[in-house]
Amino acid sequence: MSTRAYGVTAADQSFQGMDIERRAPGPRDVQIDIAHCGICHSDLHMARSEWPGTVYPCVPGHEIVGHVSAVGGEVTGFKVGDTVGVGCLVNSCGQCGSCAEGLEQYCERGWTGTYNSPCADAPGHTLGGYSQRIVVDEGFVLHIRHPQAQLAAVAPLLCAGITTYSPLRHWQAGPGKKVGIVGIGGLGHMGIKIAHAMGAHVVAFTTSESKLDEARALGADEVVNSRDSAQMQAHLGSFDFILNTVAAPHVLDAYTVLLKRDATLCLVGVPASPHPSPAVIPLIFGRKNIAGSLIGGLAETQEMLDFCAQHGIVAEIEQVRAQEIDAAYSRMLASDVKYRFVIDGASM
Amino acid sequence: MSTRAYGVTAADQSFQGMDIERRAPGPRDVQIDIAHCGICHSDLHMARSEWPGTVYPCVPGHEIVGHVSAVGGEVTGFKVGDTVGVGCLVNSCGQCGSCAEGLEQYCERGWTGTYNSPCADAPGHTLGGYSQRIVVDEGFVLHIRHPQAQLAAVAPLLCAGITTYSPLRHWQAGPGKKVGIVGIGGLGHMGIKIAHAMGAHVVAFTTSESKLDEARALGADEVVNSRDSAQMQAHLGSFDFILNTVAAPHVLDAYTVLLKRDATLCLVGVPASPHPSPAVIPLIFGRKNIAGSLIGGLAETQEMLDFCAQHGIVAEIEQVRAQEIDAAYSRMLASDVKYRFVIDGASM
Repeated sequence: MSTRAYGVTAADQSFQGMDIERRAPGPRDVQIDIAHCGICHSDLHMARSEWPGTVYPCVPGHEIVGHVSAVGGEVTGFKVGDTVGVGCLVNSCGQCGSCAEGLEQYCERGWTGTYNSPCADAPGHTLGGYSQRIVVDEGFVLHIRHPQAQLAAVAPLLCAGITTYSPLRHWQAGPGKKVGIVGIGGLGHMGIKIAHAMGAHVVAFTTSESKLDEARALGADEVVNSRDSAQMQAHLGSFDFILNTVAAPHVLDAYTVLLKRDATLCLVGVPASPHPSPAVIPLIFGRKNIAGSLIGGLAETQEMLDFCAQHGIVAEIEQVRAQEIDAAYSRMLASDVKYRFVIDGASM
Repeated sequence: MSTRAYGVTAADQSFQGMDIERRAPGPRDVQIDIAHCGICHSDLHMARSEWPGTVYPCVPGHEIVGHVSAVGGEVTGFKVGDTVGVGCLVNSCGQCGSCAEGLEQYCERGWTGTYNSPCADAPGHTLGGYSQRIVVDEGFVLHIRHPQAQLAAVAPLLCAGITTYSPLRHWQAGPGKKVGIVGIGGLGHMGIKIAHAMGAHVVAFTTSESKLDEARALGADEVVNSRDSAQMQAHLGSFDFILNTVAAPHVLDAYTVLLKRDATLCLVGVPASPHPSPAVIPLIFGRKNIAGSLIGGLAETQEMLDFCAQHGIVAEIEQVRAQEIDAAYSRMLASDVKYRFVIDGASM
């Protein structure tokens, strides 16, 4: 089944329209006509071989929303016409301890990414959501219960949303808890909205004076300019949890000292070069933790989508046409996006 | 009350005998005739001003065991003749959340160290266990229930013992758990003994081929030469908890990759210069944690002492005379100690 897509044929090439093959739906498959696909910073890293292992042609995209256009004979959870989403994973081993616990993102044998992972279909690796159609095992398809009018803005929930929701839930953000969100970008702006909806007291950290008011509008109770040491000092030892969404290398000690005893600074961004080595003293004097967290499992992703639908949460987005992906990447690198680009599937 | 002690008058001076003043016991005080005092690496750092803030004269020592020789009128927990211990703390605020939870080592207003902390007694800062006698509030005195013959070897439990026991308990070492102990020194050898007694499967990591057999004798089920990458690879993703006692800067990634999902690498050593910055990827791909832990609270220290008495656990020690402290420091720097020096109080 030939499908129109946008991809790159080498690290230094621009995006171009191309025809890719999608498998005919098997018994457990759901075929989805893609309405929108978010642009995640990972897409750029992968398309341009900034991370190891990119195989070409590369069709990125793992913030996928659309409508079911066919289902296999054994599919029980979806029917034609359903509004659905697909995130970062399209398969996992299904056998290991993590899969058994519904934590497919930590599959011990390695999950199958929505793009750039080995698979049986042509061309031998998965091709993502910058395309008109995708076929996915129903175990990796999510129900979307937001109003149709919000559908484009729902797309980023499939990566940016779950990447922030999962650690906020795991480390128990909620009423009575003071939660920090570091960085107000694609991930951070979702973190603010979600932590606020969970009932936490949300403090946003940014280096951009221009984002102070925006962060409050997104739901932050307080906003701290992290370059202002007096503002930082005022929060010493007071946080139950800090979610750090910044991928650029920076001094983590500035945040570990803000944690309460036994609290955690969780990193979800991968810096291209290492952060300065975190000081051990703030960890020891307070039994504090530096942790990481990776997207979320399928059950938790569905929980997140339902939570967001219930609380009216979507991403702040700017729609672009498929022909504008390169330009969108350039603007993303210049931090010129509030806060997520989403490709309009109709432009494919 | 004049008391014989050994201390230094400046960072570059040798230890010398000196007479210090101890207060007469107040209503809540316990006066202890010191039988033995362990030598902790912190003593050396502090005596030589390798950490900031040393005040002189400096009388180190916070692994104190001895016998009660007087008690104040309001003391209820101790009587003359009791065998007791004093560890790293002799006071805390008693008011903050950490103190209320019995976690005095995380006192939010700063606890009073057994030496080098400001106090009302002359000379205005606390003087530690390298002395014949000490007077301590009963809330910071521990009961020792080991046989008298083991008393010298009990002394290191007051710091090295509780520093390893507390994180092992906090992160739930026990039957069915695979626990790593990195470094087989003053702290690590206690960690092996305690984790073994807790029922965990204990894997010791060392860079010293010479310590492989010794680690097994201490209670390790397996010993890994951490310089042998094949040996390390065999343990990938398999640890429930790793306690890292090594203070020298080293690559933490070697251990984070050995953790299971959601598991913790806990640091109890403070390197003089930073560890190489830990990679974020192993933390994110497995929701793993790097944490720190500081000694233990008073209730937990009593629990540790009783646990060790019940399981026949003491430190491996070499006794030295007070006149040999400088030589012991030199040997400690050369890693020529198995595994803890203890000063014989009779030599004072």
